[in-house]
Amino acid sequence: MGVSGAAFAADTTATTTAAASETSAAPSKNLIVMIGDGMGPAEVTAARYYSKRFLGKDRLEMDNGYYVGKATTYSQPSPYTTESGAVTDSAAAGTAFSTGNKTYNNAISVSNGDVAKPFGSVIEAAMKQGKAAGLVTTDNITGATPAVWASHVRQRSNQNAIASQYLASGVNVFFGGGKVNFVTKDEKGKRTDKNIIPDYEAKGFKTAFDKKGLEAIPANAGNALGIFADNEIPYVLDRGENTPSLPQMAQKAIDILSQNKNGFVLMIEAGRIDHAGHANDLPANIQEMLEMDQTFKTVVDFAKKDGNTSVVVTADHETGGLTLGINNVYELNVDLFDKQKHSYEYLDEMLKKAQNTDEIRKIVADNIGFTDLTEEEAALILKGDGSSYGRAGGYNAVVSQRLAVGWTGHGHTGVDVGVWAYGPIASLVKGDVDNTDIAKSGAKIIGADLNAASQELQNKYVYPMFKIGRDNKVSYPARSLAEEFGIAVGWDEASKSVTLSKDGKTLSVNVEKGTITENGAATEWTGNMDNGKLYLPLEVYNHLIGKSYMWDAVNERIVKN
Amino acid sequence: MGVSGAAFAADTTATTTAAASETSAAPSKNLIVMIGDGMGPAEVTAARYYSKRFLGKDRLEMDNGYYVGKATTYSQPSPYTTESGAVTDSAAAGTAFSTGNKTYNNAISVSNGDVAKPFGSVIEAAMKQGKAAGLVTTDNITGATPAVWASHVRQRSNQNAIASQYLASGVNVFFGGGKVNFVTKDEKGKRTDKNIIPDYEAKGFKTAFDKKGLEAIPANAGNALGIFADNEIPYVLDRGENTPSLPQMAQKAIDILSQNKNGFVLMIEAGRIDHAGHANDLPANIQEMLEMDQTFKTVVDFAKKDGNTSVVVTADHETGGLTLGINNVYELNVDLFDKQKHSYEYLDEMLKKAQNTDEIRKIVADNIGFTDLTEEEAALILKGDGSSYGRAGGYNAVVSQRLAVGWTGHGHTGVDVGVWAYGPIASLVKGDVDNTDIAKSGAKIIGADLNAASQELQNKYVYPMFKIGRDNKVSYPARSLAEEFGIAVGWDEASKSVTLSKDGKTLSVNVEKGTITENGAATEWTGNMDNGKLYLPLEVYNHLIGKSYMWDAVNERIVKN
Repeated sequence: MGVSGAAFAADTTATTTAAASETSAAPSKNLIVMIGDGMGPAEVTAARYYSKRFLGKDRLEMDNGYYVGKATTYSQPSPYTTESGAVTDSAAAGTAFSTGNKTYNNAISVSNGDVAKPFGSVIEAAMKQGKAAGLVTTDNITGATPAVWASHVRQRSNQNAIASQYLASGVNVFFGGGKVNFVTKDEKGKRTDKNIIPDYEAKGFKTAFDKKGLEAIPANAGNALGIFADNEIPYVLDRGENTPSLPQMAQKAIDILSQNKNGFVLMIEAGRIDHAGHANDLPANIQEMLEMDQTFKTVVDFAKKDGNTSVVVTADHETGGLTLGINNVYELNVDLFDKQKHSYEYLDEMLKKAQNTDEIRKIVADNIGFTDLTEEEAALILKGDGSSYGRAGGYNAVVSQRLAVGWTGHGHTGVDVGVWAYGPIASLVKGDVDNTDIAKSGAKIIGADLNAASQELQNKYVYPMFKIGRDNKVSYPARSLAEEFGIAVGWDEASKSVTLSKDGKTLSVNVEKGTITENGAATEWTGNMDNGKLYLPLEVYNHLIGKSYMWDAVNERIVKN
Repeated sequence: MGVSGAAFAADTTATTTAAASETSAAPSKNLIVMIGDGMGPAEVTAARYYSKRFLGKDRLEMDNGYYVGKATTYSQPSPYTTESGAVTDSAAAGTAFSTGNKTYNNAISVSNGDVAKPFGSVIEAAMKQGKAAGLVTTDNITGATPAVWASHVRQRSNQNAIASQYLASGVNVFFGGGKVNFVTKDEKGKRTDKNIIPDYEAKGFKTAFDKKGLEAIPANAGNALGIFADNEIPYVLDRGENTPSLPQMAQKAIDILSQNKNGFVLMIEAGRIDHAGHANDLPANIQEMLEMDQTFKTVVDFAKKDGNTSVVVTADHETGGLTLGINNVYELNVDLFDKQKHSYEYLDEMLKKAQNTDEIRKIVADNIGFTDLTEEEAALILKGDGSSYGRAGGYNAVVSQRLAVGWTGHGHTGVDVGVWAYGPIASLVKGDVDNTDIAKSGAKIIGADLNAASQELQNKYVYPMFKIGRDNKVSYPARSLAEEFGIAVGWDEASKSVTLSKDGKTLSVNVEKGTITENGAATEWTGNMDNGKLYLPLEVYNHLIGKSYMWDAVNERIVKN
């Protein structure tokens, strides 16, 4: 990405020096973006009800003078499915608020269509200014919300690629869960290549794997990789003493990044509000919300002291369709909001092992004190809720009913999300905004150039759709990739052939046989049709444009050179 | 209420003249408050999706630079039930945003507790400044949202009293539905006393009962009463050509009220967003939302031209628990949002008459074009949804499922609602506010004195709880009404008597027998116990305080004199 992954102290190239002087004219030197994943309007209100009832605080920290507006969240129609984009996922929403561009669900900072282009993020643009950068989350560090800031893939599920791209990204601090995408299958991980943690260490990253390790990282570490769980960091309700909290990770990231004289950009995600929403576990959801809120306090306390930091907070979408009221009863049983000891996730194994409703009753009584489950409630838990959450889903349904809160599913919903801000950025994100305005305003407030960051990436990479044939050969959609490379596409009805021409060269692809000829002579290449669309191997395009572009199979992109 | 109901042109008392000069120093001369009843965050987003897909507008009028914040909506614990107030009704929310005070669900601008006090509204305070005032709604004009501005009762259902109080209120313009509360049972109304429309006419009110009548009211009418339906004004989807729209009513109200040189306060409610939410009819809900939005444009166009008007918009609460997404599908079927011809309300009679699923199928196909109902869907409609909406509820459930929107009930929910504003008031209601801040800010922006308005009302009226005995005698809770009147309350264990003392007089109430003595001598009065609480007739209090306060049975209040 053109910015060294080494500690920024050594980073004194002409480019960054020039950029740094621009920076000093920008309204803010530092930018902190906080994302509550799945933090819809009802999630915020629910946490406030808890805060008022059990913490004696009428307002959340973030609701105490920082609310400035709301954002639309829709994404774009999927190139793979019939999804319209009316309801976003975290990848498309993340691409919007990190790069300023709409895309399809699943895309990690690449554009929509058969041939996608990478979009530069505010973090990538800021690193060109010589700023430091960090990503902090309670989700997997390679989850969509952090990924969009420092990696580019067509499919968010390609988390091994994201972990590898991070290493080259220049980002200085990574704190979160998701060790599985850094280590091999032999080490209970998901990688087939190698454990890449030593690669981070070789690049100067201090590493940490528990709370003490995090505490031990010095503020002048420069680069740090902290992975505190194999997968997601446990819910607040279930967390052990060796696992750091989100405010602790955020504070350490700030300590490290704020050493950079050119400033920094830090993204902090409360990633598990979303997970508790998917599962419909309100008590767990509230605790994640409150941790988000405490982290906001940590961040704003820093920003106020620093005097040169903008903070912006939003959500990617709502999760679960939470509503604060059910049936026709004008009531919420707020008194029960603090009764649950552990999340559904912690109970899951126990619930699965239960042999009968008596055992279900004991688990429920121990965890939330409901000793009077009806037969119907106990049976629902034993049977499961019909979703992949099974008995845990049944448990959450029973608890939600008693709390008098509703959910309309296990997926996302399309309601607008809130925007909170502190510092100069506040005036840019107030009122009615779109999630893309978060990125645009963030870049503007620190004087970072999103277009230049995108251009640099687009000069290097193209992200086409592709298919892998029976021979393991990869091929790409002819019309759209030809267009991308400036190749003229024609049709010869007589020979039932697609013609591809550039700079005096013409290839002819017989769509019935797949044979490819050049000036009537056979070539070694073949094309193939899939659902009426012609696919061609990279060699064909390389031949026409006179290049030797390479297929990067791990990252599923064509590397220009 | 001390302000004449006559046309304001004649209103030149010393008091109002003095107040008017204060007014001129206030940031705004006029205030328009718009309420979307039941307009939660998801309702706003749903209407925007429609607007984008079918009207070619990416933003609602009100979402085009006017959004400034969000408001908490909770009310207070009920003195009658176990309701905690976590989820408000329109009466408590309305009391909050019209008077600046929290109260219990059902209360129309009176305080909480056994003995309630009336709270003055921004309209009542503004009329003391010599300003004109109006109430406009698509709901019954005596519904809770308009009622809170110009009447005071313990129970919102007492709409006959509200209609009567309006006449004496001094408010100049009333436009809405709900003729039933103005006319007698003989005239298909609900009143037992008399048709009170002639009383309005005698007070100088021009009256209108259809669209032409509304159009015929001249701008210099001074006072106008327009009642355009027996009950609620029909939904936008069902409305005939003789019924005026909300923007038409709003414009006429502005035309009339803006003649007042001292300015005006106008409350406009889009009342049926709520009703469509209760019924879970999204297509009807969206059309009511869009009418709200068009009305906002009418209002802001006036405010911009006028240059001396503040506009503030909010909701009382969300209704129905609407979510924009169901199950685990990241999708909304926005393409279907415009397919419904009529609301569930219009279909209701037809659905009730259907004999079988074939007839159900025909009704559904005719109304929304779904010709492929499954057996399950048709059966659900035939059976009804189990709520009081019956088959119409089943119809709405089937439609919602196909639109991919969720609802979690037929009641209200507790999520925060949005706040939009134009003009000087915008800076006072931005960010994180409570619904009471709407009233406080509205009063401040026009220089009106809410406390003085409350004090004037409280000098005249007390709203105690009461019970009606078998002898039709009314009695009141002893301890709390005694406290209100400065009567000392004691207990004499020997005689099992409550003692009530003031200014040298002492009455003794034997709680076992109910007998009341004064200096050992029997009196004609008796007390009675209800659920451990002593109730006494008004004569007892009058005797002790030396007054002859009267019980106003219609308005359920004690009138001081």
